[in-house]
Amino acid sequence: MVITVTVAQLREICGADKIEGDGELLITGANALENASDTELSFAAHQKAMDSASHSRAGCLLVPLSFDKKGPWSLLRVSDPRAAFARALSVLYPAPKHTGFRHPSAIVAATAQLAEDVYVGPFVTVGEHAKIASGSYLGDGCVIGNSVSIGPKTILQANVTVYDHAQIGARVLLHAGCVIGADGFGFALAGDHYEKFPQVGIVVIEDDVEIGANSCVDRAALGRTRIGKGTKLDNLVHVAHNCDIGCHVVVAAQTGFSGGVLVGDYAIIGGQVGVADKARIEARAVIGAQSGIVTGQRIPTGEPVWGTPARPIRQHLKGLANVGKLPEMRNELKLLKQQLQALASKLGVTSD
Amino acid sequence: MVITVTVAQLREICGADKIEGDGELLITGANALENASDTELSFAAHQKAMDSASHSRAGCLLVPLSFDKKGPWSLLRVSDPRAAFARALSVLYPAPKHTGFRHPSAIVAATAQLAEDVYVGPFVTVGEHAKIASGSYLGDGCVIGNSVSIGPKTILQANVTVYDHAQIGARVLLHAGCVIGADGFGFALAGDHYEKFPQVGIVVIEDDVEIGANSCVDRAALGRTRIGKGTKLDNLVHVAHNCDIGCHVVVAAQTGFSGGVLVGDYAIIGGQVGVADKARIEARAVIGAQSGIVTGQRIPTGEPVWGTPARPIRQHLKGLANVGKLPEMRNELKLLKQQLQALASKLGVTSD
Amino acid sequence: MVITVTVAQLREICGADKIEGDGELLITGANALENASDTELSFAAHQKAMDSASHSRAGCLLVPLSFDKKGPWSLLRVSDPRAAFARALSVLYPAPKHTGFRHPSAIVAATAQLAEDVYVGPFVTVGEHAKIASGSYLGDGCVIGNSVSIGPKTILQANVTVYDHAQIGARVLLHAGCVIGADGFGFALAGDHYEKFPQVGIVVIEDDVEIGANSCVDRAALGRTRIGKGTKLDNLVHVAHNCDIGCHVVVAAQTGFSGGVLVGDYAIIGGQVGVADKARIEARAVIGAQSGIVTGQRIPTGEPVWGTPARPIRQHLKGLANVGKLPEMRNELKLLKQQLQALASKLGVTSD
Repeated sequence: MVITVTVAQLREICGADKIEGDGELLITGANALENASDTELSFAAHQKAMDSASHSRAGCLLVPLSFDKKGPWSLLRVSDPRAAFARALSVLYPAPKHTGFRHPSAIVAATAQLAEDVYVGPFVTVGEHAKIASGSYLGDGCVIGNSVSIGPKTILQANVTVYDHAQIGARVLLHAGCVIGADGFGFALAGDHYEKFPQVGIVVIEDDVEIGANSCVDRAALGRTRIGKGTKLDNLVHVAHNCDIGCHVVVAAQTGFSGGVLVGDYAIIGGQVGVADKARIEARAVIGAQSGIVTGQRIPTGEPVWGTPARPIRQHLKGLANVGKLPEMRNELKLLKQQLQALASKLGVTSD
Repeated sequence: MVITVTVAQLREICGADKIEGDGELLITGANALENASDTELSFAAHQKAMDSASHSRAGCLLVPLSFDKKGPWSLLRVSDPRAAFARALSVLYPAPKHTGFRHPSAIVAATAQLAEDVYVGPFVTVGEHAKIASGSYLGDGCVIGNSVSIGPKTILQANVTVYDHAQIGARVLLHAGCVIGADGFGFALAGDHYEKFPQVGIVVIEDDVEIGANSCVDRAALGRTRIGKGTKLDNLVHVAHNCDIGCHVVVAAQTGFSGGVLVGDYAIIGGQVGVADKARIEARAVIGAQSGIVTGQRIPTGEPVWGTPARPIRQHLKGLANVGKLPEMRNELKLLKQQLQALASKLGVTSD
Repeated sequence: MVITVTVAQLREICGADKIEGDGELLITGANALENASDTELSFAAHQKAMDSASHSRAGCLLVPLSFDKKGPWSLLRVSDPRAAFARALSVLYPAPKHTGFRHPSAIVAATAQLAEDVYVGPFVTVGEHAKIASGSYLGDGCVIGNSVSIGPKTILQANVTVYDHAQIGARVLLHAGCVIGADGFGFALAGDHYEKFPQVGIVVIEDDVEIGANSCVDRAALGRTRIGKGTKLDNLVHVAHNCDIGCHVVVAAQTGFSGGVLVGDYAIIGGQVGVADKARIEARAVIGAQSGIVTGQRIPTGEPVWGTPARPIRQHLKGLANVGKLPEMRNELKLLKQQLQALASKLGVTSD
């Protein structure tokens, strides 16, 4: 569903001082600069985007205060065009509302406590003693285990599985296919076979977390696995038992954390990174894509790291550059050898 | 279900000129050379396979025109034995047909339009204004969002989730657990926390695409994420928002594409490859497994690339070889130093 | 659910000779040393844990025979504290029992054969001719294909998909979102497009296997894909068509096996490892995280391997160390060049 607004309404939504152009123009959607039509909103945040704004056919543009191009668009000047555009998007494309509906096919345990306005989709199951707070949304086919708690305004998209005892906060968004609380991977060789170490801990997902499609967060062996407030995990991420991921951490797709990893607040972790057990990533540390953090390694705040084993990025790049210069070094070494022999021979002595 | 055919029928199916051996022999299945029984079909496409065909107990063999071995099998000579075998397989093991059945448990919105012969499995949900074309198959537990369109003869295996507004073409095959159209991963730091950039674009999956189990294709932030006609993605692949994957591209398992990546037609991409944002992979480019394509990197058509950052494979292998020769270089350097000192000492001068 | 036991009962469960402390103390749970309360059980297996045991407020500790610290805890001395703790956990936190219940919403084909005490959750579907043995558990939303067989006491957590004809053994544990038996990834370029090689083989999962959340095991093209007895796969693992994974193999998260890989018994494979097609990993081989095993590579028993392409770990680490010494080597080379020129100049001859 798309909402239609006037440029004048957008000015209020985005907090622009004034309108340059037609305030009554109807805006029916939003798009990238190069694709926007004359009834769509777009934005230019950086110099490169501002340069290409000249060619945009957008009906209305959100631009920085310093923007100096002229064109057919209505202009709204704001200090942060990207943030203003995000606000406009949430008005133009409002999230669907489904409050207070419980599909008759859903199976909700008699002892579960659901706020009255929780949405429960078709084929959802909710276990014994589960508690679902006001305004939450359980998408089609979700499976909510026993004694799970879910805070207010949390959204579980379709086919999410939450194992028993997991605790999920407020305004959390779990994408389709997520699995929260599966057993940690703990086995000990007992003679000729592996025996399972029972996994009896829980998962705690704090407020404002978002977790991507088909990602997995395992329960703790003992105690809890934690995803801190405001942290965002992309698709197909793996978080093993007993990890403690701090607040406002960003983790790109397909990254995996082994057992017992600590990640400090505001860390930024690229895609396909592997973090071995008991590694410690400090607050605000930055890890490049595909890096490997080895067992027990500590990644400090400061210079971003890259590579396997990960090290400061300048050092890693220097290493790569040095390897690139090896053919040249080999030639120099060969030449030096010849020169030494030539010198010795000229002087009539042997060089060894 | 397996169909029984005679060798004579196989001759027609596979387009062989004549039968060498018993045309009336009944063939009840197909198997690899080493495992096939005397009522099973097998094939030998390459020299190595032809050599081991002598030991096969298969009832019937598909072989190249040049095949010169003798054995108990009936022979069918064809120009492309692998392709002929594939054709025979589709006759011997026909895909199950489920047309025109709608399970009474399925929840189909009143405004959804389904062709009469669409198969709708148990516990499927279909959203408002969805359109499902003739001959398509929605496996058990699939969740089809609002305004989704699905072309003719498309198969969704069990537990697939398709978010609102996704467009899926004809003869597409989505394996179990796929998630199509989850939010792209877009956040901006706003003071002390991340704010979500609303993801309002769509996913377009063109005709004849196959996507493996538990793979994820995210919706665009704005505009569309595209998987081009005939492209094949393996299991656990991640395609981020606004990627444009061309036609007839092959992507092996666990590979991930960050936001806004362009991939040209007929590219071949190995498993566990990571492609950073805004990279551009040209048509027919080939990328080795586990490679890392860095932000904005362009991979040209021509020599395959490998490594992180990816570079032409011969260059990458030379780099590895040079690193392998480092101990030898270190020894040479040490020896040269000693020789120089020895020379200087013999001549009674210092070498520094 | 947590069971309460006395220290005296724990002595019997764990096989300790005697109790040091209060045998009548009630134990209501288990926890890590640092978090355990005075009614919880904990354990110390290694020296480091024993040292920190002094500070633990646990009510009861499982310790080695040699433990010599004093504290407020009741002590149980055993030869293997970790294994004894695991036994205690399975008593303190018993797995829920759900035998003999078939949810009325489940759709079970008339020709399927289920033992009387099989648990079938809500929204489960079971296909034609499937056979489910005694004591097995099919979690909410599981989809069991036609002719699937499942052995006794096997547990499928929620939303697992098992394709037709898969064979699953006894006491297997499949975590939520697993996909067993999706098509292998087999295509051949036929002119301007790829044609699918029909995938008609099966998957065989032997007894006592555990497979993590959202992992995928593909059916064979022909014949079978096998996961051997007692093998444990972590989350998001990919096993391609025709792999033969031996018995008691351990595979960490996000690792992928391409088509036709052989893995010997008791191999140990780290996370995010990529194994290319037709590689052969011998029994008891050990592969470090993020390693890449190239096409056809053979990994022998013995020294662990690491890197891409994987090689013996000492060799790989030496290579990394040598690269780290390149700046020093470059300096030495430069110095040597200068010294040679200086020497030649002193002697009044040219060095080339």
